This record gives sequence, C-alpha cells and structure tokens, in this order.
Amino acid sequence: MSRSIMDIAGSVRALDPAASAAAAAHLDSLTKPPGSLGKLEALAVKLAGITGEMQPKFPGRGVVVMAADHGVCEEGISAFPTEVTPQMVLNFLSGGAAVNVLARQAGAEVMCVDVGVNAELEHPDLISRKVRFGTANMVSGPAMTREEAEAAIMAGVEIVEEAVSRGIRCFVTGEMGIGNTTASAALMSAFTGVSSLETVGRGTGINEERMRHKVLVVERALECNRPDPSDAIDTLAKVGGLEIAGLTGVILGAAANRCPVVLDGFISGAAALAAERLAPESVNYMIASHVSQEQGHVHLLKALGLEPMLHLDMRLGEGTGGVLALHLVDAACRIMTEMATFESAGISSGNDQAGSSGESQI
Amino acid sequence: MSRSIMDIAGSVRALDPAASAAAAAHLDSLTKPPGSLGKLEALAVKLAGITGEMQPKFPGRGVVVMAADHGVCEEGISAFPTEVTPQMVLNFLSGGAAVNVLARQAGAEVMCVDVGVNAELEHPDLISRKVRFGTANMVSGPAMTREEAEAAIMAGVEIVEEAVSRGIRCFVTGEMGIGNTTASAALMSAFTGVSSLETVGRGTGINEERMRHKVLVVERALECNRPDPSDAIDTLAKVGGLEIAGLTGVILGAAANRCPVVLDGFISGAAALAAERLAPESVNYMIASHVSQEQGHVHLLKALGLEPMLHLDMRLGEGTGGVLALHLVDAACRIMTEMATFESAGISSGNDQAGSSGESQI
Repeated sequence: MSRSIMDIAGSVRALDPAASAAAAAHLDSLTKPPGSLGKLEALAVKLAGITGEMQPKFPGRGVVVMAADHGVCEEGISAFPTEVTPQMVLNFLSGGAAVNVLARQAGAEVMCVDVGVNAELEHPDLISRKVRFGTANMVSGPAMTREEAEAAIMAGVEIVEEAVSRGIRCFVTGEMGIGNTTASAALMSAFTGVSSLETVGRGTGINEERMRHKVLVVERALECNRPDPSDAIDTLAKVGGLEIAGLTGVILGAAANRCPVVLDGFISGAAALAAERLAPESVNYMIASHVSQEQGHVHLLKALGLEPMLHLDMRLGEGTGGVLALHLVDAACRIMTEMATFESAGISSGNDQAGSSGESQI
Repeated sequence: MSRSIMDIAGSVRALDPAASAAAAAHLDSLTKPPGSLGKLEALAVKLAGITGEMQPKFPGRGVVVMAADHGVCEEGISAFPTEVTPQMVLNFLSGGAAVNVLARQAGAEVMCVDVGVNAELEHPDLISRKVRFGTANMVSGPAMTREEAEAAIMAGVEIVEEAVSRGIRCFVTGEMGIGNTTASAALMSAFTGVSSLETVGRGTGINEERMRHKVLVVERALECNRPDPSDAIDTLAKVGGLEIAGLTGVILGAAANRCPVVLDGFISGAAALAAERLAPESVNYMIASHVSQEQGHVHLLKALGLEPMLHLDMRLGEGTGGVLALHLVDAACRIMTEMATFESAGISSGNDQAGSSGESQI
C-alpha cells in the first residue's frame, strides 16, 4: 500500500512550460493592458501548464466531499454534536446542503464519500470507502494506524481515477467531519512548526472559552504523539483524520492525472500540506479558492505559496468555497477563447508596458 | 435639470427592514452554522432589504458601460493614447472585449453608452447620449460645466429607467475612458480629503516616473478648480468626467428603483462617492464586487463602508469585476431558495451559537 502512494506521488510531473508560455503570449495579445486581468491571467497560464493545452475547458467537474468522524470530539472541542456528521452526509445525498446548491450552480457533480463516519450509512449515491468508524482520540494516542491513513489516501486517489475515466477533469476538495478543524490545526502545527495558538480557530463557531480549551487539546495531541513532519503519512495517521487523508489522496490523484484541483478551506489546506510533502510538484496543480474566517487559513495558504481569490468570510467547509471558484476557472478559460486581439480589433497598444500576465499568484 | 437630480436622489428610500429580518431568520434555519456563509449571507439580507422580497431573483441584469474622453490626457498621464477610447467602444459593440466575455458568462446585457467620447461614433447597438466631445483639461479650468455634469447624470438615470421597464432589475457599473483614473483620483481626493499621493495609482499600467507626474497633475487640477466637496455636482463638473457622472446617475437610478447596483472598480467607486453625497441611502443599494490593484480603491471602498468579495488584482475596468460578482449575487439567491432547513433535514443544531447572519459586511 505504501508503495502505491509513493508511485502516485512520484508520477506527479512539472507543469508544461511550452503550454504556459503560449498561454501567456496569447493573453498579451488580447484587447486589455498586459496583466490587467490579474489572477484570472495567472490562472489561465496555470491551467495551460497543468493540462498541456493553451485553451483548456473543463465541462466535467466534481467536488469530492470526504466525510469522517473524530475521536477527539470526546474532549468537547466543537459547537456541534458528532451525530451531525452522518446527518449531514444524508443531507448531501438528498441535495439540500450548501455545497449541493453551489455545485448545481457550477454544474459540478457532488461525490459524497464515507471514508470513516462513525455510523452505518447506506444510500445508493454514497461512495462507501469506510476505513474505520471514526478516528481514536488523539490526545491519548495516534488517531489511526499508518495502514489506515494509507487506505484513506488510496481511497481518494481511486475515486479521482474513476472520475477521470468518466470525463471529469477538474476537482474540488470538500469535507464533513465534526471536529476536523482541531485535527487540521494539529496537522498545520506539525507540518509548519507554527504554535497551536495560531493554528486553532473557531471552527463552526465556538466561543472564547472553548477555543482556549481547543488550543490545549491540540498541544496535548502533539505532545502525546510526536508526529514526524518529514513523514507525511505518519503525521496524518497520528494527528490527522480519515477525511483529511482522503483529500490528500484526491489532490495527489488529480495532480498525477494532470487535472487542476481547487482547494476549499482550512481542512482542505491541511490535506494539501500533506500532499505537498509527499509530492512537492503537486502544489502547482492546486488552486486556492477562498480564504476562510478560520484564523490559520491565511497562513496555511502562504505556506503553500498560494493566493486566494474569494474573500467571503466563510467558515462552512463542505467544498462550498471551492465550487464557488469554479466560476473563476471558467472565466479564465473564456478569456482565453472569446476575447478579441489588438490586431483583430484594430486597437492601439500602450506605451509603458508595465505589468505582464505573470505578475499575480494564484 | 438640477431639480430632476434632486428628485431622483430624494426618492431613494431606506431598505425594507421587515424583508431583511425575514431573510436573516430564514438563513439561521438552514443546515449550516449561523453566519458560516459569511458575506453571501450578508448579501442575501441586503438583497431582501433592497427589493422588499425575502427570496429575490435577478434573471434580468445589465452592465452599463459609460464611455467618454478626458482633456487631461494632454498632460500625458496614461499609458494608452486617447484614440483607444473610441476603438474600445467599437470592441464592446462587436463583443470582443473582456467585459463582453464575462457578461456573456453571467447572462448580463452590455449597454454601451457614448456619453462623451471625442469622436463621431455610430453603431445600431450604441446608446448615444453624448454631452460633449470629451472634457476640457482640468489643470487649467473646470472639466465641464455644471449643466453638462447634470446632463451626464440624467443620461445614467434614464438608461436605468428604460432598462427597468424592460425587466432588468440588477445593474453593474462599467466604464471606458483613457485618463479616467486621473479624474477619479481627483474626485476621491476632493470628496475624502485624502492626498493625491494616496489616491493616484498606476491605472492601466504606467511606470514610476509617469505616476509621479500624474500625482502633480491631480494636485494642479484641485488647486486650479477648488471644487466644493459638499456639492457633488460641482465636484463632478470641475474634476470629474462625463462617464463618471453618468455612472453616478446609474447608481442613483438603480437605488431609486430599488435595484441592487454592483460596483466595479476605482472609477465606479468615484462615481459612488458622488452618489452617496447626493443620496446617502444609496450606499445601501451598492454591492462591492472586487478590490482592484489601483492603490486608492481599497481606501475608497472603506470610505463607502463596503467590503469587496473578489481579490483578483484586476485593473482593467469596463465592468469586468462587477459582472464576475453577479455569480455571487446568484449564489446568495440560490442559498435562500434551495437549501434544506435543520428541521426539514432532521439535523441537530449547535450549542455555542456564536456568529450570525449579520456579522459580515458587503
């Protein structure tokens, strides 16, 4: 199993420099000052490099919503009871959650995955890849075994491979798991060395007292488990979560298949940190959608070298910010195919030529 | 004429508090932590208050692209020659500009208005409301007369009224006018008292030397004309522009007709400052779409009390950022109509209840 993950990670290639350069040159021929569409131009260049096509389109797109439970909820770190995880999975499957609404708007398929919910779940549309019934409480030992973390990662990889075989070429990461901002804060502290005072946030909306407690819980989990940050699988197993490991697999699978993967919020970012450790080139396949209200998210994106496009103060997860950003992926693609050039429109060009299509980061 | 503008401004009413309250209560019943959709929730509450309907929709939407020329271009403040204004108007009319591409994506009509281009323009789809052939050079006298500023404002009002009669109920402000970031910086300095060092930016992409010159040009225009900031029409006439005055009219017309108006970038913001002086309640009808690379824009939005949703480092204008944000208007509307409630989905609610739908600003 471990061998397979290393195979997938090793198959992530650098972006295609010729396609990126062709896209940048085309952008500079269009009827606008060079670079004036900012991050949309950087996104168009990136999408060309990812796909190897100067003018890609992504009619097939899907959001993978990985769901799992967290033993650390025994410590009282969330505003919501753990039974909300399976309840929300059923809400995703009946189409009533926020991610369903925004995915419909974006024309994206919702792939709902049980990778570790602490309840028996059955539904014709549920992708059942349950590794175990929730993690163990990480304050008194590892959240899961190394083999379980590997199984969750491979579930993500295989779900992407199956979707690619059906024509889906653009992915969004989403998740559901009461307690998963706690695990994500622990992962971010482990991978980046940043104190839990800065990585712990209010999650779905806890008060000040519960937040101070959550900081201590993360510190105890890190002290008890001492994860090795140079070993991403070890770190995911000890202080991560099943849905987070699953999303690490989604990101690696997308990158290995030369598909863009739009990151949602803080939990997706923690999964991305693990993916970057396993395959450093994978970060070039990631697109940061939004920056959430979770205080650690902005620093997490900086650690990945990514800049978010949407500033909506959201803190819901599920993939909601990610599917909203598909509109911007489409906008970048349309700019590349539908705009007139200076030559075709007979327009005079500028004389200072400051800026270029490469100046924004996304 | 002045009387008419005062009539329009005086007819802008406060938002409907009952509709806003009903929208906020509905949002808190949906399957998400209260307030967790951030600015999308604030937007849904605002749209309800604007329209008086708890669940509005905006199938008819249009971007009004006001075009005009600027005499101050004689001072060499732009990276592009003035003939680009009429050239770009023809590009808008043939559908090849960035705003056309992004408006098609958003399902929005492009209304292209000649309110003061310094060229004879004819096209079946052009809305001809030319007040004069470009402004005079504001470093040696007023850009236009008070009557001309009033005529440009009324053109904007009347274009909105005509569009409303055709079923358009959501507006985006757009513009084209080589030199108009210079006029907008002068307006911002006049209205807010902020130094031209902070209101002048790089526009479509000028270099450092030309930018220092542009700061001096704005200072000279303000010293020469001494606009009265308590008289918005006087200020628009002396250091503004015909397309900027036109957009002030679009904003007032939208607000008077209880329609949301999505602001694009820096130039739209300068028009919005004038609208707010004429009708303080009009700011409640404005939606900030993006924050541009133009350095004064973020401060201008703060002066209006608005927070942008998109951070794309754009600096193109035309209405491009505004039409991109229509996707977020639609998302807010869909959330209100398509999401399940805690009760309908049988989901347990939280126990801390931090946050609410009112905490984000848009």
